[in-house]
Amino acid sequence: MKIIYGADYNPEQWSKEIWLEDMKYMKEAHVNMVNLNIFGWAILEPEEGHYDFKMLDELMDLLYKNNIDVDLATATAAQPAWLSMKYDDVLPKDQSLNTIWHGSRQSYCPNSPNYRRRAIALVRKIGERYKTHPALKMWHINNEYSDHTHICYCDNCARSFRLWLESKYTLEEINERWGTSFWSQKYYHFSEIIPPRQTSADHNPGLVLDYKRFMSDSILELYLMENEILKALTPDIPISTNFMGNDNKPLDYYKWSNSIDIISWDSYPDITKTESPMNNALTHDLMRSLKQSGHILMEQAPNQVNWRKRNPNKRPGEMNTYSMQGIAHGCLGIMFFQWRQSLKGAEKFHSGMIPHNGVETRTFKEVCSLGKQLENMTPIEYKAKVAIYMDYDCWWALEYEPGPSIDMKYMDSIRSYYSYFFHHNIPVDFVFENSNLDNYDYVLAPNMYMIKESFSQTVHKYVKNGGQFILGPFSGIVDESDSVFKEGYLSTIKDLMGISVVGYDVLTHSNSISYKELTCIKWCDEIKLFTADSIADYQSDYYKETPAVTINQYGHGKSFYIGTCFNEEEMNKLLSSIITIKGIESPYNVEVITQGDHVMILNHTNIDQMFELCFFHNRSNITIKAHQTILLKK
Amino acid sequence: MKIIYGADYNPEQWSKEIWLEDMKYMKEAHVNMVNLNIFGWAILEPEEGHYDFKMLDELMDLLYKNNIDVDLATATAAQPAWLSMKYDDVLPKDQSLNTIWHGSRQSYCPNSPNYRRRAIALVRKIGERYKTHPALKMWHINNEYSDHTHICYCDNCARSFRLWLESKYTLEEINERWGTSFWSQKYYHFSEIIPPRQTSADHNPGLVLDYKRFMSDSILELYLMENEILKALTPDIPISTNFMGNDNKPLDYYKWSNSIDIISWDSYPDITKTESPMNNALTHDLMRSLKQSGHILMEQAPNQVNWRKRNPNKRPGEMNTYSMQGIAHGCLGIMFFQWRQSLKGAEKFHSGMIPHNGVETRTFKEVCSLGKQLENMTPIEYKAKVAIYMDYDCWWALEYEPGPSIDMKYMDSIRSYYSYFFHHNIPVDFVFENSNLDNYDYVLAPNMYMIKESFSQTVHKYVKNGGQFILGPFSGIVDESDSVFKEGYLSTIKDLMGISVVGYDVLTHSNSISYKELTCIKWCDEIKLFTADSIADYQSDYYKETPAVTINQYGHGKSFYIGTCFNEEEMNKLLSSIITIKGIESPYNVEVITQGDHVMILNHTNIDQMFELCFFHNRSNITIKAHQTILLKK
Amino acid sequence: MKIIYGADYNPEQWSKEIWLEDMKYMKEAHVNMVNLNIFGWAILEPEEGHYDFKMLDELMDLLYKNNIDVDLATATAAQPAWLSMKYDDVLPKDQSLNTIWHGSRQSYCPNSPNYRRRAIALVRKIGERYKTHPALKMWHINNEYSDHTHICYCDNCARSFRLWLESKYTLEEINERWGTSFWSQKYYHFSEIIPPRQTSADHNPGLVLDYKRFMSDSILELYLMENEILKALTPDIPISTNFMGNDNKPLDYYKWSNSIDIISWDSYPDITKTESPMNNALTHDLMRSLKQSGHILMEQAPNQVNWRKRNPNKRPGEMNTYSMQGIAHGCLGIMFFQWRQSLKGAEKFHSGMIPHNGVETRTFKEVCSLGKQLENMTPIEYKAKVAIYMDYDCWWALEYEPGPSIDMKYMDSIRSYYSYFFHHNIPVDFVFENSNLDNYDYVLAPNMYMIKESFSQTVHKYVKNGGQFILGPFSGIVDESDSVFKEGYLSTIKDLMGISVVGYDVLTHSNSISYKELTCIKWCDEIKLFTADSIADYQSDYYKETPAVTINQYGHGKSFYIGTCFNEEEMNKLLSSIITIKGIESPYNVEVITQGDHVMILNHTNIDQMFELCFFHNRSNITIKAHQTILLKK
Repeated sequence: MKIIYGADYNPEQWSKEIWLEDMKYMKEAHVNMVNLNIFGWAILEPEEGHYDFKMLDELMDLLYKNNIDVDLATATAAQPAWLSMKYDDVLPKDQSLNTIWHGSRQSYCPNSPNYRRRAIALVRKIGERYKTHPALKMWHINNEYSDHTHICYCDNCARSFRLWLESKYTLEEINERWGTSFWSQKYYHFSEIIPPRQTSADHNPGLVLDYKRFMSDSILELYLMENEILKALTPDIPISTNFMGNDNKPLDYYKWSNSIDIISWDSYPDITKTESPMNNALTHDLMRSLKQSGHILMEQAPNQVNWRKRNPNKRPGEMNTYSMQGIAHGCLGIMFFQWRQSLKGAEKFHSGMIPHNGVETRTFKEVCSLGKQLENMTPIEYKAKVAIYMDYDCWWALEYEPGPSIDMKYMDSIRSYYSYFFHHNIPVDFVFENSNLDNYDYVLAPNMYMIKESFSQTVHKYVKNGGQFILGPFSGIVDESDSVFKEGYLSTIKDLMGISVVGYDVLTHSNSISYKELTCIKWCDEIKLFTADSIADYQSDYYKETPAVTINQYGHGKSFYIGTCFNEEEMNKLLSSIITIKGIESPYNVEVITQGDHVMILNHTNIDQMFELCFFHNRSNITIKAHQTILLKK
Repeated sequence: MKIIYGADYNPEQWSKEIWLEDMKYMKEAHVNMVNLNIFGWAILEPEEGHYDFKMLDELMDLLYKNNIDVDLATATAAQPAWLSMKYDDVLPKDQSLNTIWHGSRQSYCPNSPNYRRRAIALVRKIGERYKTHPALKMWHINNEYSDHTHICYCDNCARSFRLWLESKYTLEEINERWGTSFWSQKYYHFSEIIPPRQTSADHNPGLVLDYKRFMSDSILELYLMENEILKALTPDIPISTNFMGNDNKPLDYYKWSNSIDIISWDSYPDITKTESPMNNALTHDLMRSLKQSGHILMEQAPNQVNWRKRNPNKRPGEMNTYSMQGIAHGCLGIMFFQWRQSLKGAEKFHSGMIPHNGVETRTFKEVCSLGKQLENMTPIEYKAKVAIYMDYDCWWALEYEPGPSIDMKYMDSIRSYYSYFFHHNIPVDFVFENSNLDNYDYVLAPNMYMIKESFSQTVHKYVKNGGQFILGPFSGIVDESDSVFKEGYLSTIKDLMGISVVGYDVLTHSNSISYKELTCIKWCDEIKLFTADSIADYQSDYYKETPAVTINQYGHGKSFYIGTCFNEEEMNKLLSSIITIKGIESPYNVEVITQGDHVMILNHTNIDQMFELCFFHNRSNITIKAHQTILLKK
Repeated sequence: MKIIYGADYNPEQWSKEIWLEDMKYMKEAHVNMVNLNIFGWAILEPEEGHYDFKMLDELMDLLYKNNIDVDLATATAAQPAWLSMKYDDVLPKDQSLNTIWHGSRQSYCPNSPNYRRRAIALVRKIGERYKTHPALKMWHINNEYSDHTHICYCDNCARSFRLWLESKYTLEEINERWGTSFWSQKYYHFSEIIPPRQTSADHNPGLVLDYKRFMSDSILELYLMENEILKALTPDIPISTNFMGNDNKPLDYYKWSNSIDIISWDSYPDITKTESPMNNALTHDLMRSLKQSGHILMEQAPNQVNWRKRNPNKRPGEMNTYSMQGIAHGCLGIMFFQWRQSLKGAEKFHSGMIPHNGVETRTFKEVCSLGKQLENMTPIEYKAKVAIYMDYDCWWALEYEPGPSIDMKYMDSIRSYYSYFFHHNIPVDFVFENSNLDNYDYVLAPNMYMIKESFSQTVHKYVKNGGQFILGPFSGIVDESDSVFKEGYLSTIKDLMGISVVGYDVLTHSNSISYKELTCIKWCDEIKLFTADSIADYQSDYYKETPAVTINQYGHGKSFYIGTCFNEEEMNKLLSSIITIKGIESPYNVEVITQGDHVMILNHTNIDQMFELCFFHNRSNITIKAHQTILLKK
């Protein structure tokens, strides 16, 4: 199976002479697929119901003739100006009900009837026209859903929200779940419920949680609406839409992944930050785990981006290293935004495979060299013995709460645990609500504020059968409606953990624990032991000498509770004492991935590195230059 | 007279089984009063004009049966969703005329006719139903007025503002008072006057000042409207509404206090800040002084709050110390928000007397112990020989000004003087526009930017008869309409102070004065002496060797002018040379209150303290633990 | 020719007794001109079409009688409240289409038909009434255009914008210039184009650039509309409007300057900043250069302003030094805001020539002394051999770009080059798109992001004929429609510079260059030499040993390219090696201006300074006190 290599291709910005040059240079770069037509709507449909496919026809044929596959986009990511002007319902509204006007991109209300109607018509037209075109190899629905418009507060959304609620709950259930006896919020009719618009103080967190679910579902409906049309027309063409990585909170990607054939995502690490290689690896692992199968790196920058405050160039080799990281973590393809750097528009200072200054540039040379390298490789099947639990409802509920502490951020907690494995070169999967945990030695839930009943059962069984479960602080507080458990924190997993958590203290300075006098920060759960033992106690404050970290034998397995937080170095020391999987030593940010008989060594740093590489029975001295990638076979 | 002890009680969030438990635990906690029905409106009035008092009847009876008094709330603090949806005028509008939507609490326009109409109807219903109920001991009108909605800019408010103005001024007077010849702002009809909505630069400060007065009055009208109904029905039941402390700027509490039977307030000190014990004492003194009689601490947190960025727990003893501080400063009662910590809603991480994890907790134990302690105490009558002048108009006018310096903040100035007395354990009262000053040795006006003619006369008489008046910098600038005095700064009090202030300089670094070389900051008034003498001169800059601090003999008394600002330590040194009242030495933040034959020692710090306590003829060694309270009799 | 001396005069805020006092004190202060009627509209037109000129008549006569000339304002800077309330179109709307309400000043939409109609009527009335009045010596149109309202997004503006576009481009040209194939932004009808209102992500930069041009032109139309009326009535009376200095970005002052008889501007340096004397000198040079003739300092503060966070006093002498700086840089007049400090309104803490505390003040004494001094002086004709190129389109285009770096600020770049000349006391002019460069030894273009074809031709010819051109980094990127040059950076000036720029790197730390190991910051262009030579190479990173600063012989002249940025000290060292004009040594911020046989020495510092002054054949020891001015003749 060949590795996909290519880019977003926007030939509508260029003359036909340039198209011919493009074909030549794509060959030089070993490009085998492009994402076409992503922003094509305004050209395809000059006025409502009148289509013009001339340019797209020509491009499809040209690409086919040049042996370049097409991941054909449905062009619904940015509606034409005429559509925004013609119908009142198309543009979204902000929290104060002010309009989000036309002029940028993705300025449509997810629940706009006219946007939906015109998108359906367009996708059907495109599907019918190209369903048998030999260049067509994949569908690219919309683009970066939720990146610019992830929420809308308009009256159409209000109406749809009420229908969404009615399909799930009675009004009595809503009053009960949201706790509307608080602050006189009781509803007597569905019509009284509105989106969480600008108001005088905090909203009801239950309503906000359900509105987040509703918005993710509304946008998912857009996807499903297109998916259904294309599946019917071309059942054998795989469909994808490009996700936005681990920082993208608005969409429940796990829920979405059921309906997507191949997961793909856009990777834009901040190259000025030390943690970016780790964070990017984490996202690859998250994306791969959504369907437990190969995924595509759908966009990355060949060199600099344009939208941060300061946008330095990638150093020589850095783009290659990030691309190889994708392959090492299971990617089926490596693609860029975009083929040719734009001369106009809001992204003209975002690099392209061919930059403003042409093909005689470092960027294009690195692009060609990577293409050649990938031609001789095949995708890697990635296996891990460690899993981290991820849940979007939990993320949403945790971070809307007024209190207890702004320091408890869901993805930060996950990163603080993931970091240990990354820096020890131990492979990690992510698991979700309904995942099978059987094959993992460790399952970690860094900040499981919400207990989902199904996962509670799964993890009980997992530990009973010999698994090891590690739970972080501020966990087990609320149920799926964001109500605190009547029966106290930890609820149904008290027996599993062998403790109860009777309270917590929020730290403005720090405390320490008795294990190696590690400094703990941010948060201290107050713990009572039942069947568990203390691994480490707090060393000061009024809860001095009470448990901070505990271990509980449960069935054939063990459960650990870590009731406090640590910085990276301290966390490293603590987890080293709990995790018995042997990692691979390497210098900081030199990543070593071993999968099957592949060994990939990625130097993510700006300096040359030397180290002794030891694993299994091998032991060899490695010298690796700054931003170099070394591929070995065991 | 017993001390009131209890909490907000929100049983509508709980099942009837829990109510019975509550009665048991309230007894255990020595609770004798609860605030009931604060957020009851949505339950009491399911649709317009249809009431359901079943639950409230049952609760009143249950509490009566259990010997728990009720401070019955009128439930108007949060209108039901149906009311917000039914009438256009109910929801307030922000400075851009965007709606503040339903979904939180206190989302009503103070001048909404429909809100007022329905609130009147509700209060009448409640008043008539419970006027003879034996549990009823106090009325609790609305809740925390102005906390979330203190201003509205809608057209109803505009109309009401014009009527408010017409009742006070002719159009000619408005043009004169506001100085509308500036920036072409002259009005020819009342209809041209609008609220200070979003505009292109600074508003007219005179208009803004009158709009603040109008808004305070509009909200006061809401109070008076309820007060009138209840007074007519139950002339013997005292009425209160809970104020929001010294940081609450929107309401002129002095003007309000005339119509309130018992002052009460909600105390939420930021326990991470060193100055909080001082600031909390200040607010007690301010609240007590409003009516010169006992007040109630109506809400405080049994442990952590939920709405700051980081919300640590109160340390063991800390809640007790803060409660005892209330008693020491004259409180009639100590109450909490709330009895039982909520499981749902926006405040579920705010502590309750019974926390999420039940009665086997430190919090509930401390609550019970305090209740028992208070049963054996009676309220203290508080007397002071020092008074600080406080005026809301002055606060409002001073802080809207464009210039001269953002460093001149009214309450910060008051705190910087109050702090001296707090740390020397010298009792302080607050005085207002119409107060009698006869019994004070010192009256201080830290930043009397506005001179009110009545107070000017009072203070002239006070000093003439032997009083000592201390005036801070940037004082005597404007009259009650915020117009600078034509006759120069200090106007009618020039004779009293014996100086003129010919200008001022705003400091970006610092200067110093000749008295002990104290460093002065923020501000330097340029002073010319008439009859006064200089106590200290500036030591550098172009006004070097001109007076910074002056003293003037006037009649039998003295007037001091302090033309600059100091940090706490330097202010301490300066005031020590002026104030001759002997305080009581104690470690920093160990407060010693002596009133009558009571001596209360409150250790507000996190460490144990030892010191020699000296007053009158007593001298004893005190050892006091962190957050401990010691009660002695002289 | 006498030097104009005076102030804004707002007698409408004062009684007639005060007017008479004013006449007396104006004489004392040597005032010879006042700006009258700036905020007079509400008084002149009490209701639509009804005028009342009584007060203005009286004032004109009074001033005439007292030999004080009048710069008569047209009073259109702030419309009366009744006008804002009467017509819907008058008030501007913000980016979310929320109204900017009445209540401050300059709250009108530049494209409001009713504002324009009433302004025209008013100006005609004023013009007709006073066209022969002997006091009238100048017209003052409006006031500080764009200071508070520089943009509006309302539907009237949208309509006008479309007409403005139609007058310049076909729809095809718009699509081409703005690059609307990017993000599906293609337009099919002019009616689809709207202002850059609140949207979901970045706007199209081409549209934003044209909207800035349109807004500058819209406000210019307001000026021209008044100008036309007054020119017809009084062809011999000069017309001015006060500009806002070098920080004012919304108006293309170069385009405006064609229609203005005498340039004037308002100078409010931040006296707490070390760079203010340099920055203020820069603005004088910019303003003078707009028309290459004398300009007026139309407003400055006699002492403190009121609108910064902290507003210290000017030190003794400081106001004089700033006034003399104006004279030294070519001013025809020195004026203040305002004559008498207001007692009311939003600027009551802005100083006046007569302060709150009267004429017995340092401020008034300094004012009188300056007036006397100016009576004995005449304006200076200013000549320079160095010119800096300034272009508003370039400024607008550069700073809207998403990327590459927020550190590239147009005026900061200009200041970093100008600073060298200021601190070496070398006179500087500014030049523009159509300026004649013949008389300059050096022309600098610090950040010429946009190449204008006409200037490209001018500068080619200039260098060919022996001129020296110095170009800064990130230059030559886009054409006048903000499209990147297809042919690569530098486009038509590649031959002139003798290099190509193949890319750039944005720095988050620093690099250095081989010339004196100077530290370079922010930005590094990657340069390839054609005919040019390298003066200095980069010393580290992947572009180590490639050129950073280059020199190219072209015809009889030379072109320098400086591909990176420096702090002031390093820039000083670099430019010293390039610029061969000999400056005059003086202590930091002691400015020495030599023009004709005038030598003016201005000590802008807070300390006394001694130095040896050397120029031509003179050499003398100078002692100059803090904020002192010394005038010498050669």
